Amino acid sequence: MCSGCIEKEVVKILKVDVEKPELGKPNFDSERILKPLREKFNEEIKIPLVILQKLPYTLRKCKNSIYVILVKNENYWEVGDILCEKPEEILGVGIDLGSTTVAFYIYDFVEKKLIKSFSILNPQIKIGEDILTRLHFAKKQENLEYIKNITIEAINEELQKIGSEKIYYLSFCGNTAMTHFFLGLPVNYLFIEPYVPCVKWIGILDSKELNLRTHPLSKIFIFPIAGTYFGGDLIAGLFFSEIYKKEELNFFIDIGTNAEVVLGNKEFLLACAGAAGPALEGAIFECASQAKEGAIERIRIKNNKIEYSTIGEMPPVSICGSGVIDLIAELFLNGLINSNGKFQIDKFPERFRKIGDEYVFIVAEENETAFKKPIYIKQSEIKSFLRSKG
Amino acid sequence: MCSGCIEKEVVKILKVDVEKPELGKPNFDSERILKPLREKFNEEIKIPLVILQKLPYTLRKCKNSIYVILVKNENYWEVGDILCEKPEEILGVGIDLGSTTVAFYIYDFVEKKLIKSFSILNPQIKIGEDILTRLHFAKKQENLEYIKNITIEAINEELQKIGSEKIYYLSFCGNTAMTHFFLGLPVNYLFIEPYVPCVKWIGILDSKELNLRTHPLSKIFIFPIAGTYFGGDLIAGLFFSEIYKKEELNFFIDIGTNAEVVLGNKEFLLACAGAAGPALEGAIFECASQAKEGAIERIRIKNNKIEYSTIGEMPPVSICGSGVIDLIAELFLNGLINSNGKFQIDKFPERFRKIGDEYVFIVAEENETAFKKPIYIKQSEIKSFLRSKG
Repeated sequence: MCSGCIEKEVVKILKVDVEKPELGKPNFDSERILKPLREKFNEEIKIPLVILQKLPYTLRKCKNSIYVILVKNENYWEVGDILCEKPEEILGVGIDLGSTTVAFYIYDFVEKKLIKSFSILNPQIKIGEDILTRLHFAKKQENLEYIKNITIEAINEELQKIGSEKIYYLSFCGNTAMTHFFLGLPVNYLFIEPYVPCVKWIGILDSKELNLRTHPLSKIFIFPIAGTYFGGDLIAGLFFSEIYKKEELNFFIDIGTNAEVVLGNKEFLLACAGAAGPALEGAIFECASQAKEGAIERIRIKNNKIEYSTIGEMPPVSICGSGVIDLIAELFLNGLINSNGKFQIDKFPERFRKIGDEYVFIVAEENETAFKKPIYIKQSEIKSFLRSKG
Repeated sequence: MCSGCIEKEVVKILKVDVEKPELGKPNFDSERILKPLREKFNEEIKIPLVILQKLPYTLRKCKNSIYVILVKNENYWEVGDILCEKPEEILGVGIDLGSTTVAFYIYDFVEKKLIKSFSILNPQIKIGEDILTRLHFAKKQENLEYIKNITIEAINEELQKIGSEKIYYLSFCGNTAMTHFFLGLPVNYLFIEPYVPCVKWIGILDSKELNLRTHPLSKIFIFPIAGTYFGGDLIAGLFFSEIYKKEELNFFIDIGTNAEVVLGNKEFLLACAGAAGPALEGAIFECASQAKEGAIERIRIKNNKIEYSTIGEMPPVSICGSGVIDLIAELFLNGLINSNGKFQIDKFPERFRKIGDEYVFIVAEENETAFKKPIYIKQSEIKSFLRSKG
């Protein structure tokens, strides 16, 4: 599930043929493009000043036939750009700022599809691995500013690689602390009684308010905060899974550094939270580790082909907590383990191998990994995982 | 009439006592101030990011009792600032950018009154006295940028003298060319057939979009353009005179460098425009001149006391076109001339004096003026004024 995913209908690309101006009737360049836009869809549209400043030149250069990019704001649409040619790519980026990793989901509004996703390490780790250390650090205003700046800078580096000028929309989610850090909001009263977050609903901001390196008119939607322990990341997950619309009872689980579990349907939602990720990392798995560069965090198995992605897109060094969850789920979905967790060796013999006196499942062969040793999961590790969670 | 005047209900100052946060119920600093605000008046309110960034500190520093300044945006209100103490002055500035002079009207939202008005010379005059010269000059993009910058800079100097940090709202009107220059909008297609203005409705902008030196969250309302010859200055005049609401037929006259005349009521408005101001300046009046520093532009006579204001607040050197209109109107309203324009010398004997073989009315005595010569209007000048306009 892609909790950082972007809503698909927030950017539109429309071709518009405008009427030529004529002597003797009211002629305004603004009205000439607004009229056909309003005919195409009946919502309020505003033209920002920087677009007006080039509108007369562009309309004539494009011979009254232009492509208009519309970007959704809270209750109206804004002209994001005007171009003579249809743009090849108009991108949206979903950002999921986790305590340990930052996930990016790149959506193309021209092709209307997710074209890439990847993640990097959260640069805040250098201040402290656990959130509480960072919260204490951020009590001083200049430290909060510092955390905000290193976070934005790390995100900006990725946005620049993606192509800043092509990015017209961002969506952001993170837990309550991450949302505060990202926006530079004081956390001083967040982690002492009575635990008061600064804000609940943030809505849509101009990306430039956060110094994000995107198209100058791009917007960013910030998923709202539900409470101190239930942040925008959980809201984003609930929003996209739509469990709040369902008749039947549903169970929503988001496992990251912390895990949030929500039980409910269209009538009620009951949530609880607790530590999670670190329990899977290192302690019971030989090849597992905390999320770090090169850690495998996403795994897909299909027709006996294994695909994985690593943090920072580096050669694999280990599997992090999210990767372990993915791996066990994929093994089960592909019939490579049964409901007791027992390996079904004949289903994928090339990848089941005996190391010492125990069978393992090879996730990455030694020629793929950074240290030239295979990365695997043991039969006994799966059993103890199932026992601990069962 | 004050066509640059500001609407009185665009900034509110509200005292708010917020609930203390308590353990066991949802606590958000944002909701704590929004709740009592929404109880006070039922409109949408947004808190900008820079206010959220200081909200937790300010709420605690002010012991949960704060003054909130609300600034109106197009269809919602925005928190402009939060303060522990009631501010002494919260200002709005109406700016009327004429081709020759820039008039400023300063309104205090705390006392709810106009506290001052004054005017300066339009710095664009150095490019050319008539608008057409400036329009030709501005065809090049860097020249348009230059005109915009000198205009904003001249306005900024005055805003700084008024007190930038106290200014939360501006309203702007000007003729079509002036509005284009002020906003940096291309004028290339404005003065060639078929005469196309760039934009009709601009609405409310953030003052910082125009680099205006005001409170960082202040807004500016731009009066809309009705057509090439009917600009925001005329719309502002019609708006405040409310002739578009009246049953009976009304006649609206705005005399500046150009004059616009509108005839109408709530059913129709018929407008025409033409050159005006220069016709009154210099040609038929000995003491008149084009608008320049020291020119008397506003005159009030009450109980045989004469009050006037000059451009740039300098010692008087002459009377400009607007001053001549004011003077003749005030003379008539005070019974100092009759309906034929004849001086009623016994009504204000100190100010009627014989110079040569003709009576004059002294507007400024020689000890008040820059050149130590009196500034006056002659009996014969009034007669020829009435003939030419009658």
